[in-house]
Order: sequence, then C-alpha cells, then structure tokens
Amino acid sequence: MIPQGLYTAPPMEHCDSLISATWIVPVEPAGRVLEGHAVAVSNGRIVDLLRSAEARLKYQASATFDRPGHVLVPGLVNAHTHAAMTLLRGYADDLPLESWLNDRIWPAEKRWASAEMVRDGTNLAIAEMLTAGITCFSDQYFFPEIIAETASDAGMRANVGAPVLGFPTAWAGDASDYLGKAVDLLHDPYAGHPLISTCFAPHSTGVLSDEAFTELRVIADQLDVPVQIHLHETAAEVEAAVTSTGMRPLERLETLGLVNASLLAVHAVHVTEAEIELLADCNVAVAHCPRSNLKLASGIAPLAAFREAGMTVGLGTDGAASNNTLDMLSEANTAALLAKVRSDDAAVLDARDALELATMGSARALGLDTDIGSIEPGKWADLTCVDLGRLNSQPLYDPVSQLIYAVRADQVSDVWVAGKHLLDSGELTHMSSDDLATRADEWRERIAGKGPSE
Amino acid sequence: MIPQGLYTAPPMEHCDSLISATWIVPVEPAGRVLEGHAVAVSNGRIVDLLRSAEARLKYQASATFDRPGHVLVPGLVNAHTHAAMTLLRGYADDLPLESWLNDRIWPAEKRWASAEMVRDGTNLAIAEMLTAGITCFSDQYFFPEIIAETASDAGMRANVGAPVLGFPTAWAGDASDYLGKAVDLLHDPYAGHPLISTCFAPHSTGVLSDEAFTELRVIADQLDVPVQIHLHETAAEVEAAVTSTGMRPLERLETLGLVNASLLAVHAVHVTEAEIELLADCNVAVAHCPRSNLKLASGIAPLAAFREAGMTVGLGTDGAASNNTLDMLSEANTAALLAKVRSDDAAVLDARDALELATMGSARALGLDTDIGSIEPGKWADLTCVDLGRLNSQPLYDPVSQLIYAVRADQVSDVWVAGKHLLDSGELTHMSSDDLATRADEWRERIAGKGPSE
Repeated sequence: MIPQGLYTAPPMEHCDSLISATWIVPVEPAGRVLEGHAVAVSNGRIVDLLRSAEARLKYQASATFDRPGHVLVPGLVNAHTHAAMTLLRGYADDLPLESWLNDRIWPAEKRWASAEMVRDGTNLAIAEMLTAGITCFSDQYFFPEIIAETASDAGMRANVGAPVLGFPTAWAGDASDYLGKAVDLLHDPYAGHPLISTCFAPHSTGVLSDEAFTELRVIADQLDVPVQIHLHETAAEVEAAVTSTGMRPLERLETLGLVNASLLAVHAVHVTEAEIELLADCNVAVAHCPRSNLKLASGIAPLAAFREAGMTVGLGTDGAASNNTLDMLSEANTAALLAKVRSDDAAVLDARDALELATMGSARALGLDTDIGSIEPGKWADLTCVDLGRLNSQPLYDPVSQLIYAVRADQVSDVWVAGKHLLDSGELTHMSSDDLATRADEWRERIAGKGPSE
Repeated sequence: MIPQGLYTAPPMEHCDSLISATWIVPVEPAGRVLEGHAVAVSNGRIVDLLRSAEARLKYQASATFDRPGHVLVPGLVNAHTHAAMTLLRGYADDLPLESWLNDRIWPAEKRWASAEMVRDGTNLAIAEMLTAGITCFSDQYFFPEIIAETASDAGMRANVGAPVLGFPTAWAGDASDYLGKAVDLLHDPYAGHPLISTCFAPHSTGVLSDEAFTELRVIADQLDVPVQIHLHETAAEVEAAVTSTGMRPLERLETLGLVNASLLAVHAVHVTEAEIELLADCNVAVAHCPRSNLKLASGIAPLAAFREAGMTVGLGTDGAASNNTLDMLSEANTAALLAKVRSDDAAVLDARDALELATMGSARALGLDTDIGSIEPGKWADLTCVDLGRLNSQPLYDPVSQLIYAVRADQVSDVWVAGKHLLDSGELTHMSSDDLATRADEWRERIAGKGPSE
C-alpha cells in the first residue's frame, strides 16, 4: 500500500475523444481482438490504444464515447468507386458490361454529366458510405476537382482519380486536355491535405493511344502519383485489345512502362497464372470488386491466387450503377464467400482476412497504409463502430465472424474520419438525408424523364 | 349528373385491414407493378386488390395502413432452413461441409439438441425472419413437433419437415423410430391447420438404408405428403455415394421410387445435364441455397439451367450456421448475381425473376402455391412491406430493381402473416427482442462454455 500523501498520481493527459467498445479489432497486428479497450484521439489522430480502466486514469477527454455490445474497427476503405454514378443506381440493370456501358451509361453521362451532377451524386454516395462505415473512397469520375471539394467539405477521406480518356466529355476534350486538367488537380491544391489524395485514372486501355499512355507515364513519374485503371475486367475487353493491338491489355501496359508499384489494377478478373506472377513481381496492387463483377457477369477474380502470390489486394464497391450499393461489409462478405467457392476451399479466406481486405488491404492498394487502415497510434482516427446486439447477430461466438458473415450495414452506429464524428448512433451529423433524397429525386426525374415504373 | 336523392351509393363492405403502398408487386401476374393500389384483407385472406381511390369507397376497414414510399410484395418464402441452428450462428465458420458437419455441428448437436434448444433457436430464427420480411419457412430439424408448435404460437407460417436419419439423436433412435415419430407429427395434429404444413425430411441419401427409404416412400405415398432431402450438395457427397453404393444419390433415389413431383431436392449443386433433364421430367422441385453453398465451398448450382428446363425452383437461406443470416432479400440478390456470372450472361435472370424465386417459386417448391406466394384474392394475406425511401435506395428508377439490388433487410417495415400484423414499422408486435437475445446468450454460454473471443 502506498501511504497517503506520499503518492502523487501522474497528471492526466488531455485528449479530444476517448472511444471504448466491448471489442476493438485493430487489424494490425493481425488476428487480435481486444476486449475492454479504448482508443484515445487527439488532433484527428489516434494517440493511444489501451485498456479502458487504464484510459480512464490516464486521459481527460473532451468527449467520451462508450459503446457496449459494439465492435470498433478501422474505418472501411472503398478502393474503387464512381461516387457520382449513385444517381444512376438501378437505371441500367441486368445488362452485360459492354451494353450497359455503350447503350445506357455513356449516353446518360454524355447528356447529364456536369459539375452539378457530380456534386449531388458524390454527396449522396458519401452519405451512403458513411452510414455503411466507409471512411475513405477511391473515386474516378469526371470533374474530379468537384469530387475532391465535395469530399473535403463533407469531412470524408477521398483518393481522387483524375480521369483520362481519349474522347470528349463534358469535362475535357482529347487526351492532352484530360492530362492537362489532371495535372492541375494533382499538382497543387491538395498537396499535404489531411483528407484528400490524388492519382491518375486512365479509364481502360481501349480508350487511350500509346502516345497518351506515354505522356501520362512521364507526368505520373514526375509528380510521383499512382495510376489506377480498369484492367482485364471482362473477357470481351481482353479479346478486343488482342484484336486491335495484338496484345492483352496488361502486356500493352508493360511495353508502355506502366506496370510497376504505382499501378492499381482495378478488377483483374481475367488474368492468367503468368499474369498473376507478373503483377506480383512488379508489386502491382489489385482493387477487387466482386459484386460488380457478378452483376455485369464479368467473372470471379482469383482472389485467393492473388493473396497466395503475395500481392496487395484491396476491396471496392465499384459504382452504384453496377452493384447497386456502396456497402463494404456486404462486399467483404461476398469476397469471402466467392473466394471459398472459386478455390473449392471453405478455409481459403476467413472472416479476419475479409476484414483485412476491406481495411488495411485497401489502404495499401491506395498507398495510404501509413496513414489509415488499422487502429494504431499515429494513424488518422478513421474509425467505425458496429452494433453487434441485434437479433440477426445473436448469439455471438466471435465478433469478427459476426461482422463479416452476419452483420448488415445498418448496424454501423458511429463513424469518425480524422477524429470528426460524422455518424452518431446511425445519424449523419453533418449532412441532411432529406435534402440528399430530394436532390436524388430531381435527378431521377431529369434522367428518366418520368416517375418510376410509369 | 345524378340528381340528389335518386342515387344511392352501394353499401360499403367491411374488411379487416386495408393496406396501401405506393407500389404493389403482386408477382402473379408476372411483371406487374401497380401504383396507388390497396389490398383488402378479411379473415386472414386477401379479398381484393384494387385502386386505393376505389378501395376507400368500397371498403370500411377495421384497420387501415398507408405506406407511402414503400413497396408491398408477397411475404418472402424461405424454402429451406434449419431454424434452431440459429443458436450455432458463427460457431463453425470457414470450414468445408464435411468437416463443418462432422467435427463441429454434429458433435454440438449431439451434446445440446433438445426440445428446449429447438424452441429457443426456432423462436430466435422466427424473429429474425419476420424482421427480414419472411412469412413462411420450410424447416428440417430435430423435435419437429416443437418447431410446429413454436411457429404456430408465433403466428408464423411453417412447412415442418420431420427428420429421418439412420442413427440415434436426442429425438429418435433408428430409422423406424424416426419414421414412427414422423408419422405421429404428419398424420394428425396439423391437418387443415391455417399456418402449419408438414413433410418428410430424410437428411441425405448417405444416412439411410434402402429399406428405410422404401418404408418412407410407402408411408409418404399413403399420407400424400412431400419429401425433402439434401441432394448433390457437394462433390464429396456424390463421390462417397458412388463409392459406397455404386450409384449417384439421385440415381439411387430413382431406383427407390422417390424421384417424383412430391420430391424437393435441396441444393442440387452438382448435377449433370442428364440429371437436370431427369429432375425436370419428373417434376422434382429444387430449393436453391446459394449463400450456404458459397460459404461451405460446395459450388454454384446451375440455376439458369433449372429455369430453362422449366423446373420449379424455390430459394432458401439454409441454416444460420452456414449462411450466417436468414435474409431472403440478400439470398435473392446473391441468386441473381451468381446466375449471371455462372451463365456468362448478365440478362439471364433479372430482378423480377429473383423476386419470383423468393415468393412464388418457393411457394411452388413447397406445394403451397395455391395458398401463398403472390398477392391474389383468395390467398392467405402473407404480405411484406419495404421502405424504399432510405438513401441507399435513392434515386428510384424501378422499385423491383431496387428491392433486389439495393435494399437491405432492415428496410422491411411491416409483415402480415394470414392477416396478422407481426411486424409494425420494423418492430415485432408479438415477440420480445430482449428476451430472445438473453436466451441466445445463455445458449452461447452453454455451447461455447465461455464468452466470445476469450
């Protein structure tokens, strides 16, 4: 016993928020499930992860959050989407990729894509993502400067891809024009921004010339920014490339010097064993989008083979026009189930692996893993809290299993991005659902020209 | 103009409930989406489906329900589950079927299956299913008399399969004992019951002798009740049968006289073209359980081929120990996505087909289609109402597309079974979620012997 008067308690430290939940799954180190722990947050960053009892003695917090029966995980990272396309959700269902794109999506975009459409669509997507526990999204769409501004205004983390195409759209004319506008976005305004990072997003190999790719490569190297591209998404894409260039898309990218650690290959559904080896050898990351690949009948990507080859794999929802939701818990669930069936092995990817894909995996794929993806002191406080108390997640043998295999996105209770509490007990704190729904309906009326099912 | 005094309005008719929603999808006739309509219900049955304006003039209702922004569909019919296994949700994840069953599930059942466990597990499952819009489930588990009683007490519709196995469990000893107990259940107490129907549920061909199957067939014919069996679920099951009997399971059932219109083949993942032809020729129905088949790495059943062959196909969740949810909207979504990718054709099965699978298809597979499965006068008023106003289902181009591709089960607002309002604005009207959760946790403690992740 310490005699009274001789003992002086160490002074308490201040922190902005102290968040405790029954379970905390930090993801790094792998496999750990902490009970009765708390996360201390200051200046937007995680400063401590410790036992709740200890935290109460050590920290004086401006705000305290106790979430019994909940699990706290790193904010989910959506490695691939087209946020503004949320306004086209359900506009073109039950069609294969080529006809979906050529007959429905591109004509609609040609008519309607605008700064205003991108702002409204991105806001709707951000609201949906936050309520589903997503704290960061990698986007590629027209008007990326609007996407960046919209995300920043909403307090949402975004990795914004500047699109590069070879034909005119509302945003740019030819490839040079796209590249010029991309450089404007990438070069300056978001350097060192706490929420926004940027990259080049050439749409796919079919829409750009060798010259355009070469120009892009030179600029990307100079600016040291990553490049993401839809690659080997469908068999038809690969065949068309072979017909027109004599090379498969990955092969062509390799000859153009783009196959390296800066590349994020989105989809990678149709890849040979040799191509997996090439991707692994060159440290190319993959953004796996299983639900979109199913819905457009593109195929099932060899996720287990990617992981076996030691590749970095993230998980993405793709756009709501081909998914049709921006729900990373559902995506992680689908990724796990499909990996099992494609490998004839129910153990090939477990619930912990699936959670890793949706957090650290995606963060690594986007080159953001030193800043986000796990609950570790020093990283941004991007956190997602999920209520495991609902009947559909009872009984509870294992919180991670429950999170991946039983939980629905509506069980997400709280979300913090860089320490800011953007979802509180299931309610958006900084966005109005009613306003977003009204704007969405106005766009539906314009785009469809009539009410649903009239 | 009709001169006043000469015109007498027709007397209003009484009905118990008048339910209107912005959209009503009756499923039969196929493809129809009604706007501004209402369903009149009396004595548990649908008596009318008409324009809301007309309904207000025609009916004096004891209770009126208006659900703007919602879609009303037939109650979802879960063609295959093991309700009590909800208590084993998450207890044995990431394992292939054989090891899942032999190393985890059967030992746990041997230790814990009891009338009490079946009652508590079935109640938990019913609560989960109701909140997810399911109004009828086909079950096979031990203590079927408890399942029937529990469902009936809860006001839930159930098709109860009496299990038949060749080895002793807590419920019965040898095959003859199972059959005797099955006959007790099937013969009498539920004849003409408004909610409960029954069938034989031999577990799988591997666990029963030819003699037992023959005895079962004779009794099933006498009583004129259907037979459901897990069939060709995994490649290993088919191989083991060939090794031990020289025949594939379906072939053996055919020689035993069981392949006919009374048979419901559950799973049917590994079937040849010739077997599909046989199943179609003999009017065998299939219960398709895509998510369970993925999770146990069993395979992807050829749903599109079944439909092309003109077969009756229903949709089931299977038990929560292998899914891990009892969510027919998610199951219909997965069925549609998988059919597309397995057929290399994004148009092979659309949102309307998926809804049909989950309602009329399942009702037909269970032999209940004259009573349930669509919103048609004369059928039981088993109805499910879904809120399409949430952000994740905005904008709304097509309510059926939204229901299958974007909605989550938490958007189910109301459920009626035989006209009884069992879910009201998302809340169970006749069951206590807190009590169910407490019971589930007590079972977890017994079964796992400790807290989660300890």
